[in-house]
Amino acid sequence: PDEAALQGAADRNGQLTKPPGALGRLEDLAIWYAGWRGDARPLISAPQVIVFAGNHGVTAQGVSAFPPEVTVQMVMNFEHGGAAINQLAKAAGATMDVHALELDRPTADFTTGPAMTETELVQALRVGWTAVDPNADLLVVGEMGIGNTTPAAAIACALYGGDAADWTGRGTGVDDAGLANKTRVVAEGVTLHADSGDGLDILRCLGGREIAAMAGAIAAARILRIPVVLDGFICSAAAACLANVRSDALDHAVAGHQSAEGAHGAVLAQLGKKPLLDLGLRLGEGSGGALAINILKSAVACHSGMATFAEAGVSDG
Amino acid sequence: PDEAALQGAADRNGQLTKPPGALGRLEDLAIWYAGWRGDARPLISAPQVIVFAGNHGVTAQGVSAFPPEVTVQMVMNFEHGGAAINQLAKAAGATMDVHALELDRPTADFTTGPAMTETELVQALRVGWTAVDPNADLLVVGEMGIGNTTPAAAIACALYGGDAADWTGRGTGVDDAGLANKTRVVAEGVTLHADSGDGLDILRCLGGREIAAMAGAIAAARILRIPVVLDGFICSAAAACLANVRSDALDHAVAGHQSAEGAHGAVLAQLGKKPLLDLGLRLGEGSGGALAINILKSAVACHSGMATFAEAGVSDG
Repeated sequence: PDEAALQGAADRNGQLTKPPGALGRLEDLAIWYAGWRGDARPLISAPQVIVFAGNHGVTAQGVSAFPPEVTVQMVMNFEHGGAAINQLAKAAGATMDVHALELDRPTADFTTGPAMTETELVQALRVGWTAVDPNADLLVVGEMGIGNTTPAAAIACALYGGDAADWTGRGTGVDDAGLANKTRVVAEGVTLHADSGDGLDILRCLGGREIAAMAGAIAAARILRIPVVLDGFICSAAAACLANVRSDALDHAVAGHQSAEGAHGAVLAQLGKKPLLDLGLRLGEGSGGALAINILKSAVACHSGMATFAEAGVSDG
Repeated sequence: PDEAALQGAADRNGQLTKPPGALGRLEDLAIWYAGWRGDARPLISAPQVIVFAGNHGVTAQGVSAFPPEVTVQMVMNFEHGGAAINQLAKAAGATMDVHALELDRPTADFTTGPAMTETELVQALRVGWTAVDPNADLLVVGEMGIGNTTPAAAIACALYGGDAADWTGRGTGVDDAGLANKTRVVAEGVTLHADSGDGLDILRCLGGREIAAMAGAIAAARILRIPVVLDGFICSAAAACLANVRSDALDHAVAGHQSAEGAHGAVLAQLGKKPLLDLGLRLGEGSGGALAINILKSAVACHSGMATFAEAGVSDG
């Protein structure tokens, strides 16, 4: 972040026509945003939502309540404007792009070997990296991939330890037997790849193409100084792989919401991120991140649009 | 609410391209909104924010960190577009109206007598009642009035019992001595008016013109079937006076946020309302309610804009 912009924004914040601190977290968000944009009085006018889609060999283990063909069906739904994320991106004034990553070639089942080769990982990271619009001023990355709470749980378990059951949730809605099976699958994968290296190697062994693409986009946004709003459990697992490699890798990101997927709160706690929203969403697609865009826009609009005490002729107490 | 619209909205919700319940509270909000609008597939296109301003005789007791002339200065700021609520209403796509209620004639100091006569109460309620645009499809009421967390605390204490200290907070930022003084003032007022009658009489004895106007607007919105997003502590105290008179008086209202003003959470608990946002705001003006408008808009946009499984050709698990 730009220290001069941070300081300029903090100074401006102290002069605005409100009691000190009365806008709560909106004040912190605006100053943080100003720092990353290098502008003490910024605007948000070009948010971008990107949805990445991928398929997962591990679905052969029966980990999802939905069949894998739903991934490509939902990509069509995104392209035709019919999904939740289409409505949420529009309500947030954001553009939306969809990238389907080789849906007819799922990753390998991570209970039998690495989900991806190094080449496949790099290709997926690059899709994410190049999907970010350099002119965007706020980024939300979302995903679609039947079965992908299973790799996300495996990543979290590999990164943070504990039992597979601590990190495995019901995803789109598996029953008790399904949850027990899913937990077994996560445990098997984490055990098989216990010798994997850093966060990127864990991402390769246990992740998926859309998860890697999200990581690539989040990393690119940092270089481009585009602040990021994280979505739910799967997005946070992707982000966590970056944070494992470099502890400050997510300083340009805020947590848009806390998902109802069981372990999301624990992942956010590991990342040191306090969610902006907690409305029981567990959809993915970038939905919780997109819903939080307006919070950021509102924070920055107050910061940059309000009059100072001097400008308004208001006594400052 | 319209039972047919509620049922139609619930049926539609079950067919949308998402796992059941995956949009969490957004689903409940959309169905609730549909019921009040009598339309199973509604839109939100005309939200209205109204800010009422009033002055308070009780400021003579030194209950605020700001001088009373700030009320009229901030009304000028609202009219010139420089306040937080101007930016937040704009970010939410809402119109904004400001009504200043006899700022040069403060209410009486409620530690020496009733804040308002019956005539004054009715005049203030009427200002609120007539301020609501019948063509609005969502309403936020906010306020400005130096000293008005004191009457709000007194109203809450009179309605719900307990000690004055349970309901008295720091408002715009009084210090420890100021808080002790403010608590004494609240206790004196509640004791003096212990024989007041129902919620409307408590509003007359302990409230203020802008608080009564908020109550009038919330009541009018119910008749007009315009759903309401409640703002913070003072708005909730106004709403609580209505709920005391008629237990279902706030069924058309949701809590936009939980304020950082200490007792707001307790008032919301008494009203049975779970806030949509909890971002540490304590500004008033309608700021927290306005910030929540986009949540409602997004909920309704998903509900009414998403494709069904049949329309999108997506397998429903």
